Amino acid sequence: MSKVFVNIGLSLDGYMAPEGMALEHWDDPDYKNWAAKWGALMSWIHDLEYFRANLKLGPGGETGPVNDQLKHTTERIGANIMGKRMFDAGERGWPEEAPFHTAVYVLTHEKREPWVRPGGTTFFFVNDGLESALAQARVAAGDRDIRIAGGADVVQQYLNAGFVDELEIALAPVLFGGGRRLFENVADTVPAFRIERVLDTPQATHLRYVRA
Amino acid sequence: MSKVFVNIGLSLDGYMAPEGMALEHWDDPDYKNWAAKWGALMSWIHDLEYFRANLKLGPGGETGPVNDQLKHTTERIGANIMGKRMFDAGERGWPEEAPFHTAVYVLTHEKREPWVRPGGTTFFFVNDGLESALAQARVAAGDRDIRIAGGADVVQQYLNAGFVDELEIALAPVLFGGGRRLFENVADTVPAFRIERVLDTPQATHLRYVRA
Repeated sequence: MSKVFVNIGLSLDGYMAPEGMALEHWDDPDYKNWAAKWGALMSWIHDLEYFRANLKLGPGGETGPVNDQLKHTTERIGANIMGKRMFDAGERGWPEEAPFHTAVYVLTHEKREPWVRPGGTTFFFVNDGLESALAQARVAAGDRDIRIAGGADVVQQYLNAGFVDELEIALAPVLFGGGRRLFENVADTVPAFRIERVLDTPQATHLRYVRA
Repeated sequence: MSKVFVNIGLSLDGYMAPEGMALEHWDDPDYKNWAAKWGALMSWIHDLEYFRANLKLGPGGETGPVNDQLKHTTERIGANIMGKRMFDAGERGWPEEAPFHTAVYVLTHEKREPWVRPGGTTFFFVNDGLESALAQARVAAGDRDIRIAGGADVVQQYLNAGFVDELEIALAPVLFGGGRRLFENVADTVPAFRIERVLDTPQATHLRYVRA
């Protein structure tokens, strides 16, 4: 059966996004310095060969274990699940060819027809909750896996419901001081995890946890 | 000059102590399951040879890089600094021979004579702020280093004031869901850190950051 996983960048102080990184400040990267902070958080990914190829940024780039992991992680995704706020920001920020290339299930109260994008991404708008989104994602994913893409509240809901099999965190040596925390409202219903693998690089520590 | 460092265990969701682990529940380890959670956070240390020897728990125990790091970290401490709440809990919880074996500077409003314990630990009560405590600790430490022992608020004050040179974190694969967060109220005045070393073990990921 498909695995359900989270793969996310995290600041050392536990934020997946800095304060000020929100739809209303998209055109103001200096607002609370959000763009520089985001860049520092994700600095590990920008020069990777697979990242560059996937976003059509040109040939070349770093290879090695982190590049291999990024390729493996990306290619095993058969479906994505995300929250409405992440979708709203992405609808404005993603290129026309949205960077998913799978079915994407958006948890929302809004009723809307599926939105088909070039390059294999189709957004489906799910109004009846996280279990329904997961069930639909399982059908779409087939023998590939399901990524809970975010935001924090959606990750927390799937964690607390016990649906998350794997947590992949790229822990960057940056302190944001504020923003959206990944781990909040974590309930005692969350299953135990164990460390499965650590990749140690200068830009980030890549931590992989699986169910204990 | 002496380095100022923090060395602390952290849950994956960013807590240095679980909810319920407080002076008033010291005799009730089942309260919010705090004792089991603390034990899981610190499981990496209990079987280390140096930890066992230092706490006189008997001979034997695990050797290797984490044991070596613990020995090195402990032996380089020439003075400790802590907050009043940590001291209050420790005054009740530590054995007669308190586990510091150095001068310990307690930030407090309480005026009190130095408290000398067997085994080389003397607690000094500092009423005039963190810079004064640090200056006194530098004198006591000589060419050894200064550990900011906790709690979270004291660590945050020293971080925000730019006094912390090194951060050592033992990141355990446990989720607490609540408790005392290490990184809160972090200001933009905190200097940048870089990853210096990562020790990867099944019980915890030992992360060492130094000033960039």
